[in-house]
Amino acid sequence: MTVSAPATPPHVHRRFLDPLLGKAISPPPIWLMRQAGRYLPEYKATRAAAGSFLDLCYNPKLAAEVTLQPIRRYGFDAAILFSDILVVPDALGQSVSFLEGEGPRLDPIRDAGALKRLKPEAAAKTYAIVCETVARLRQDLPKETALIGFCGAPWTVATYMVGGEGSSDQAHARSFAYRDPKGFGQLIDILVETSIEYLSGQVVAGADVLQIFDSWASTLPEDEFESWVLEPTQRIVATLKKKHPGVPVIGFPRGACGLSETFLKVTGVDAISCDTAMPLRVMRSLQHHGKAVQGNFDPLLLVAGGAALDRRVDEILRTLSDKPFIFNLGHGIVPQTPPEHVAQLVERVRAWKP
Amino acid sequence: MTVSAPATPPHVHRRFLDPLLGKAISPPPIWLMRQAGRYLPEYKATRAAAGSFLDLCYNPKLAAEVTLQPIRRYGFDAAILFSDILVVPDALGQSVSFLEGEGPRLDPIRDAGALKRLKPEAAAKTYAIVCETVARLRQDLPKETALIGFCGAPWTVATYMVGGEGSSDQAHARSFAYRDPKGFGQLIDILVETSIEYLSGQVVAGADVLQIFDSWASTLPEDEFESWVLEPTQRIVATLKKKHPGVPVIGFPRGACGLSETFLKVTGVDAISCDTAMPLRVMRSLQHHGKAVQGNFDPLLLVAGGAALDRRVDEILRTLSDKPFIFNLGHGIVPQTPPEHVAQLVERVRAWKP
Repeated sequence: MTVSAPATPPHVHRRFLDPLLGKAISPPPIWLMRQAGRYLPEYKATRAAAGSFLDLCYNPKLAAEVTLQPIRRYGFDAAILFSDILVVPDALGQSVSFLEGEGPRLDPIRDAGALKRLKPEAAAKTYAIVCETVARLRQDLPKETALIGFCGAPWTVATYMVGGEGSSDQAHARSFAYRDPKGFGQLIDILVETSIEYLSGQVVAGADVLQIFDSWASTLPEDEFESWVLEPTQRIVATLKKKHPGVPVIGFPRGACGLSETFLKVTGVDAISCDTAMPLRVMRSLQHHGKAVQGNFDPLLLVAGGAALDRRVDEILRTLSDKPFIFNLGHGIVPQTPPEHVAQLVERVRAWKP
Repeated sequence: MTVSAPATPPHVHRRFLDPLLGKAISPPPIWLMRQAGRYLPEYKATRAAAGSFLDLCYNPKLAAEVTLQPIRRYGFDAAILFSDILVVPDALGQSVSFLEGEGPRLDPIRDAGALKRLKPEAAAKTYAIVCETVARLRQDLPKETALIGFCGAPWTVATYMVGGEGSSDQAHARSFAYRDPKGFGQLIDILVETSIEYLSGQVVAGADVLQIFDSWASTLPEDEFESWVLEPTQRIVATLKKKHPGVPVIGFPRGACGLSETFLKVTGVDAISCDTAMPLRVMRSLQHHGKAVQGNFDPLLLVAGGAALDRRVDEILRTLSDKPFIFNLGHGIVPQTPPEHVAQLVERVRAWKP
C-alpha cells in the first residue's frame, strides 16, 4: 500500500524549511524533541485510551492526535510524527515490548546466525500503518507547519537489537562488531535498506523533512564510528536524495562532538542536531559549512525554568541565530517538565530580536 | 593519624613520571584503568575472602594485595590504589552500599537541607584506612613502579550523592544544580575541601601521582561544565600543587571532548586522560599544549583481541607516542576480558619502535 500526500500548494510557506535551504530567519524556527509526550496531560489521556505504547504508535488516528497536541498548544514550526525508533526492529519481526517504567525489551540478536530471524520483506505492512499516520497529519496540520518524519540510525537501532534493551555503554553491539565485523555489517546493511524503505514511505505520505536519530553514537572510537555511523548514514542520505530530491535530512549523532564536523562533511545531511554538551562555539563552527545546526537547550533547564531559562535562550540565539539555525533541545523533553515552561521557552524564542 | 612514606631513593627512576614532566619516552609507559579487578582470577579469590566490595576497600592488607596482582602479572609502569570514588561520600557519613550486580546505592541528598547529614570533620578516620593501603603499597611495590592515588571529581561524586545511584543522564544532580545553584555549590565546596584532604593524605602516604576521575562530565552544557567541573577541579589542583609541589595530577573529564582543551588550559592538570570516543586527532592537538595525554584504547576491543587489537595499538602509538603520552584504555577493563588479551596488549606496546 502506498499512501500519497497531496502536493503542497505553491503559495504555502513553511518557514521551518528555510534554514534547511541555507537561509537564516529571525526568529529561528522552533520545535522540541519529544514535544508530544508525557509532560502533557492531553497526551496522557490519549495514551490511556490507546493501550500500550506500541498500540498508540500503530493507531494512526491517535498517533496523529498526539502529534497535533503540542502544535495546538504552542504553534511549533514543525510537527514530528509520533512513533518510536524501535518500530523498525518490530517491523522486521524481532518483537519489541515496552515494559512500563523500564524501557524496551527485545529478544536479542547476539550473532550473525540470529539474523535469519529477521524478515525485511514483511516490514512494509508495519511501515504502511505509520505512513497512514503521516498522511493523516499532512491533512490535519496547519498548512504552514512542516512535518518531520524520522527513524533511528542503523547503529543506534542495532544497539537495541543486539543488546535486547537500552544500556549506557552499548557493550553487546560494540562487542559483536569487534568479534564479527562482517556479520554485524550484515545487520547494518539490513537496517540501511529497510530504513530507506521506511523513510521513503514517509516522504511519499507527506513528510517534508526527515531526521535520523543516532542517540548512541557517543561511545564509538573513530574507526568504528566511520564503519557504523558515517558510512551507513551516508548511504541512507544518498539514496533518499536520489529518490526524493529536495527533501532535507537532519542528522543527530548524539554525543559525538569530536566527530561532528566529519559527520557533517561525510554523510550529506542538510543539518546537524546537537546535544546539550556541544559547546556553542563548536555549533558556530559547524555553521561555517553552510549547513544548518539545530539544538541544544538543556531539557533539565526546561524543567527548572525561571530567569536562567531566558538567559540561556538568549545566549544560544545571540551566538547562532544569524546563520541557518533551528531552535531545539539537546535531547528529548522529560516527563516532569511543567508545560508552562515550554510556553515560556517558545515565547522567549519568538520574541527574539537580533 | 598521618602515614608518611619513606623518601624515594635518589637513584630510582620511575619512567611513568617522564611524560608527566613533559618528556616523551619510547615505548610509552602503560597502565590500564581497573587493571585490578574481576577479570583476574586472583582478584576474585581475594575479593571472596574479603567479604563485601567496601570491606575489600577498607582492608589495607587485601586492598594492597589486589593492587599488586596486575603488577606481578604484567609489570605495568604504574599501580593504582585499589579503592572506589564512593569512599568519599561514605567517609562523609552518607552510607554507601554496593548491591551485587546492581551498582552502588546511597540515601540521596536532593536539596541543600539534606547537606547537614554530611560530617566532613569525621572523614579523616576513613581516609586514614585508605592511606594505610597507600603506605603498604609504597613499601611492597617494585621501586620502579609509580603509585597513583585518586578520587572522583566533585561533580561525578555529587551525581551519585544526589541521585542515590548511577544514571545515564545524571538528572537529579543536574536538576538540583539548576534549581538551587547556591545549595548545590555548597555540596561541591564540601567535596572540594574533603577531596583535597583525601588526596593530600595519599601523597603523604606515598602516592607519586594523582588522578581525578570525572566519569560523568559528558552531559553538562558549557556553562554548567564551567561551574561544576572546571572551577572545582582547578581549586583542588591549585591547592594540591601548593601543598605538594612536583606531584603531577591527571584529569579525566570523560566524554567531554568538546571542552577538553578548555579543561587542560583552565584546571592546571599535568595530563588529560581521554575516553574511547576522543579522536586521535584531538588528542594530538591536546599534546601541543606541552602536557601529556593518556588513553584511549577501547576496553571492548581488549575483550575481542586478535589482529584488530594489534592494529589499533599501533595506530595509537604511531599518532601519539613521539610526544608526552601514557598508554591506557578509554575506560575501565570489563570483567569478561581474557587476561591473555591484556598480556597481548602490553607486549604490543612494549615492542613498539617508532
